[in-house]
Amino acid sequence: MDAIDTVVELFATLPTIGKKTARRLAFHVLKQSSEEVERFASALVAMRNSVQECTVCCTFTDQEVCHVCSSEKRDRSIICVVEQPTDVLAIERTGDYRGLYHVLHGALNPLDGIGPDEIRIAQLMQRLAPEVQEVILALNPTVEGEVTTQYLSRMTSPLNIRCTRIARGVPIGADLEFADDATLARALEGRIPV
Amino acid sequence: MDAIDTVVELFATLPTIGKKTARRLAFHVLKQSSEEVERFASALVAMRNSVQECTVCCTFTDQEVCHVCSSEKRDRSIICVVEQPTDVLAIERTGDYRGLYHVLHGALNPLDGIGPDEIRIAQLMQRLAPEVQEVILALNPTVEGEVTTQYLSRMTSPLNIRCTRIARGVPIGADLEFADDATLARALEGRIPV
Repeated sequence: MDAIDTVVELFATLPTIGKKTARRLAFHVLKQSSEEVERFASALVAMRNSVQECTVCCTFTDQEVCHVCSSEKRDRSIICVVEQPTDVLAIERTGDYRGLYHVLHGALNPLDGIGPDEIRIAQLMQRLAPEVQEVILALNPTVEGEVTTQYLSRMTSPLNIRCTRIARGVPIGADLEFADDATLARALEGRIPV
Repeated sequence: MDAIDTVVELFATLPTIGKKTARRLAFHVLKQSSEEVERFASALVAMRNSVQECTVCCTFTDQEVCHVCSSEKRDRSIICVVEQPTDVLAIERTGDYRGLYHVLHGALNPLDGIGPDEIRIAQLMQRLAPEVQEVILALNPTVEGEVTTQYLSRMTSPLNIRCTRIARGVPIGADLEFADDATLARALEGRIPV
């Protein structure tokens, strides 16, 4: 049973997957054909190897520059700053936002040793050229998100750029990734100066 | 994003994993190192390729005969019949059972075209040599499990083997008030002297 136990343990390291679900998934895989399992395994490896951070906004992409940053239809005067690539997908689903993004890959968390150098803040500051008129901070409504919002607002204040934050229509304590589209759209609409 | 979408879709085919969780898992994988992802991918393929059905009891094993069937400490006069390999693990965890197992890999379901030839019933019948004194039917308390229990009890009745089923009743720790009618009816029906 060693081969099964290994897979169960690896499944259990994934978020939201406990030991029981991990076991269930492993036995589901055993019921699939060898071809199906190989297809799944190589899709995982192919994804990991082909996807890297966009050289502009740091979201995950399989190109050098992601499809948002390279689109001619986006408003280049607004940058929406989020914590994770999944947050980009969530805001894109609202269909209400036409600006660019910047993905920090985390939020400031001094207790865990996550300082400004551990997340993509330097890359954001480099992007704040004169054509950028507004930075929208769309970080998670958590302590870390709040700390990061305050930090970025202080960093951008000398630059003569409007710095806003999404309204706290997002329920406190929840994950931005799982907010429903209407709530996210409201939050974008109701952004206020920091 | 094609590579990510492919992985999201494949994750979403797994049981208990919806679209949102699938997306979260895919992005979690993207945050892992290439080595970690390759280890996960090859563990899946290795498991699928090394594990097959035990030639005796049909559970999943990476040997020809599983560790229960090959153990000298098990009571070979009792066979417990279950639907899935995960059921074997569940019963093993009780620590109370010292007999052998037989895994059907499903239950009879005429509506879905699952007849006796689609599950491992022939393999069970071949095992009912004279040293087997009891067959315990431990199938799921569902319509399909019930049909299979009745079928197997009829198949074993001419063989002079004791055929039992696990008790159906109120689960330990549950509230009598919230037990459903069918469960309560079975519990009353199956009452035993204190």
